[in-house]
Amino acid sequence: MKTDLLITNICLPGNQGEDPLVADCCIAVGEDMIQQIGPATDFKNIEAAAVLDGRNQLAMPGLINTHCHGAMTLFRGLADDLELVRWLNDYIFPAEAANVSEDMVYWCTKLAAAEMIMSGTTTVADGYFFEHDAARAFADAGMRAVAAQGVIDFPAPGVPDPADNIIAAEEFINHWQNQNPLITPAVFAHSPYTCSNATLQRAKKLARDTNVSLFIHVAESKAEPDMIGNMQGTSPVKHLDALGILDPATVCVHCVWTDEEDLDILAARGAKAVVCPQSHLKLASGISPLASMLAKGIQVGLGTDGAASNNGLDMFREMDICAKVQKIKSLDPVAVPAADIMQAATVGGAEVIGMQGKTGALKAGMQADIILINLDTPHLQPMHGIDLLVYAADGRDVQTVLINGKLIMLERKLLSFDLPETMQHVRRLADTIKRHG
Amino acid sequence: MKTDLLITNICLPGNQGEDPLVADCCIAVGEDMIQQIGPATDFKNIEAAAVLDGRNQLAMPGLINTHCHGAMTLFRGLADDLELVRWLNDYIFPAEAANVSEDMVYWCTKLAAAEMIMSGTTTVADGYFFEHDAARAFADAGMRAVAAQGVIDFPAPGVPDPADNIIAAEEFINHWQNQNPLITPAVFAHSPYTCSNATLQRAKKLARDTNVSLFIHVAESKAEPDMIGNMQGTSPVKHLDALGILDPATVCVHCVWTDEEDLDILAARGAKAVVCPQSHLKLASGISPLASMLAKGIQVGLGTDGAASNNGLDMFREMDICAKVQKIKSLDPVAVPAADIMQAATVGGAEVIGMQGKTGALKAGMQADIILINLDTPHLQPMHGIDLLVYAADGRDVQTVLINGKLIMLERKLLSFDLPETMQHVRRLADTIKRHG
Repeated sequence: MKTDLLITNICLPGNQGEDPLVADCCIAVGEDMIQQIGPATDFKNIEAAAVLDGRNQLAMPGLINTHCHGAMTLFRGLADDLELVRWLNDYIFPAEAANVSEDMVYWCTKLAAAEMIMSGTTTVADGYFFEHDAARAFADAGMRAVAAQGVIDFPAPGVPDPADNIIAAEEFINHWQNQNPLITPAVFAHSPYTCSNATLQRAKKLARDTNVSLFIHVAESKAEPDMIGNMQGTSPVKHLDALGILDPATVCVHCVWTDEEDLDILAARGAKAVVCPQSHLKLASGISPLASMLAKGIQVGLGTDGAASNNGLDMFREMDICAKVQKIKSLDPVAVPAADIMQAATVGGAEVIGMQGKTGALKAGMQADIILINLDTPHLQPMHGIDLLVYAADGRDVQTVLINGKLIMLERKLLSFDLPETMQHVRRLADTIKRHG
Repeated sequence: MKTDLLITNICLPGNQGEDPLVADCCIAVGEDMIQQIGPATDFKNIEAAAVLDGRNQLAMPGLINTHCHGAMTLFRGLADDLELVRWLNDYIFPAEAANVSEDMVYWCTKLAAAEMIMSGTTTVADGYFFEHDAARAFADAGMRAVAAQGVIDFPAPGVPDPADNIIAAEEFINHWQNQNPLITPAVFAHSPYTCSNATLQRAKKLARDTNVSLFIHVAESKAEPDMIGNMQGTSPVKHLDALGILDPATVCVHCVWTDEEDLDILAARGAKAVVCPQSHLKLASGISPLASMLAKGIQVGLGTDGAASNNGLDMFREMDICAKVQKIKSLDPVAVPAADIMQAATVGGAEVIGMQGKTGALKAGMQADIILINLDTPHLQPMHGIDLLVYAADGRDVQTVLINGKLIMLERKLLSFDLPETMQHVRRLADTIKRHG
């Protein structure tokens, strides 16, 4: 067999109940795909154009961050420890009004891509203003992304007249569909409280007509069900369901303030959910009912949200905190075991964003989105079980990253673009914010 | 001025309300002390035996982990996602009974020291069985430690007859007091439910007579106030107060299940508290009333607890989760701002363990316990404020560590001992556990 890249001497995670690690494995990568994966003894007569020695490293699928606003890295730590309304009205909204531009979105999204790649995330579902420039940034960074153009019934950067918001989304989809193997376009309807019923239905119709996912923030803070209750006489989820918005290609982000009935509706419609535990903590939104979601068979992804409310984009840390916080919600240390969290961050996350069978697992025939983790480090000793990847590993343990078959990071060195240049651009933009006061 | 080591081109944290970073600073280290620290322009006629270029790095005081059982790294991830009673009775206690030895404590504590040093912790308050070997490990690792000999009314590794527990503690203190500048002995009375009233009072008398701290686990899980209520007719804190145990040299670890009256007592006695947020989450113990503690003026430290219930010893991660979880406790994003958490992990932690004026701050005349953090990394861009060290930094950002004036880690390379040898010993011990089933 001919292969472009052969990863040798690598460990793979063992099956549940067996040894945590299977040593002496190989992965053959041909073009953008995993050709073969398994024990080295099964690899015979391989003609490899390049060999990568994976000694003392574990291979796992690249993580999938199912909710991010990449460009918000610019506002990382700009306004910590504040109430949500003050955070938005006094800091984030004015900072966005003054600073969001094509240039800002491109560079700050590229910084987010660097941070995510360097912590083992190979696919992200992103949504922001000027999403065209976010998509360009992810493409240039060599990172797989679902890029969702925002739809909101307010004047927004790039779409000054809200009457144009669906047209802008349509143009965005037309541009990016089948344009770059790394970029999948989508629509992001901001929320049930910032989009009219007509806008929500038009956004979903556009998504259906073009066969893309519809993302929407739903029931993030306690204020939202109160507001929707007053305006629509029902819960946010029931409101969306009544509008015909919920189906398997709708991704409901947050879902913190949902009850059993809401979750039954999501499950019945096959709609997807995304939880962002660190953002939910930092903004004091609450703790999502993840255990109930999983019990009802809802497919759940894990997301970091934007860096302004987290303040990092490391999915390993997100997994750890997600698992721990679920235990405190119920005062039950058995709640949502590590394996379920890992599932949400990998193969489950892929399904949430419509990439099942494509990424999120290491199998022959899947896209080669692979991360190699350094096992030779004190905080991963000893390795009694693979749960350690959830409870003790850290994005900084990721040594090497392949996305779509390409080496994007090797031994912690980002290969796909000039990181110092990107950091310099972001610092330049950040200095402007300070000057604006 | 003559100095042993001059750190140049370093950033220091700015004062509250000013720029987050002060660039172009220097630190002069002479023997074990900080001789001078401040703007480079203030450093004149310095004759330095060695110079360390701190370009693109921030100096801060080494972090203080006020509660750890270092040797429990052996059990890291051995038993995740389990109820506390099953976790203890079916996994941890049998594993301890079968595996805890002088050899195990030495090597597994040394691994813990490596993990802590490599994530920026320079001082730890540790307590375990065979604490003599833990103290040896910290001393050999070059790490500052309060090493507390355990006292419990059960047969324990190293003290098979509980009647000897106070004598063993006394011998331990006599051996280590003024023996090594890095090691401060102390007593660790396990808890109000595993120590009789007489044992608690004898442990405190020994601590008072020898002028050392008394540590004790208090009110960790909900079961404990119920148990003490049944046995003593009062709360754990009130029980300890009635026994005369509480004073400024008593450190009450956990304090999750304490009410306002309990906290008023701790404040009135000047007793110290330690919170271990990740352990409290993972074992589903609860969320400590940190905001109330601070409001009452109780000096609080932050601890990782042992690696079996965390599963890591990174104090940066602990700070982040502590801040976020406090917000969810009260659904108040303003609760316990980042600066308070940083205080607990540095200068406040020093006071908790009786090292005020010695470590926990960067000032001339303090011991030189200094960490240098790499600022040139995507997840720390941009730096709008120093809170980013709590919400976004990671132990792996620490590049260089000085403890007691000695270079212990340089550019992520541990200098004080042979880390591969230590990891090999721990893996050997871990393999034995697996064989024992």
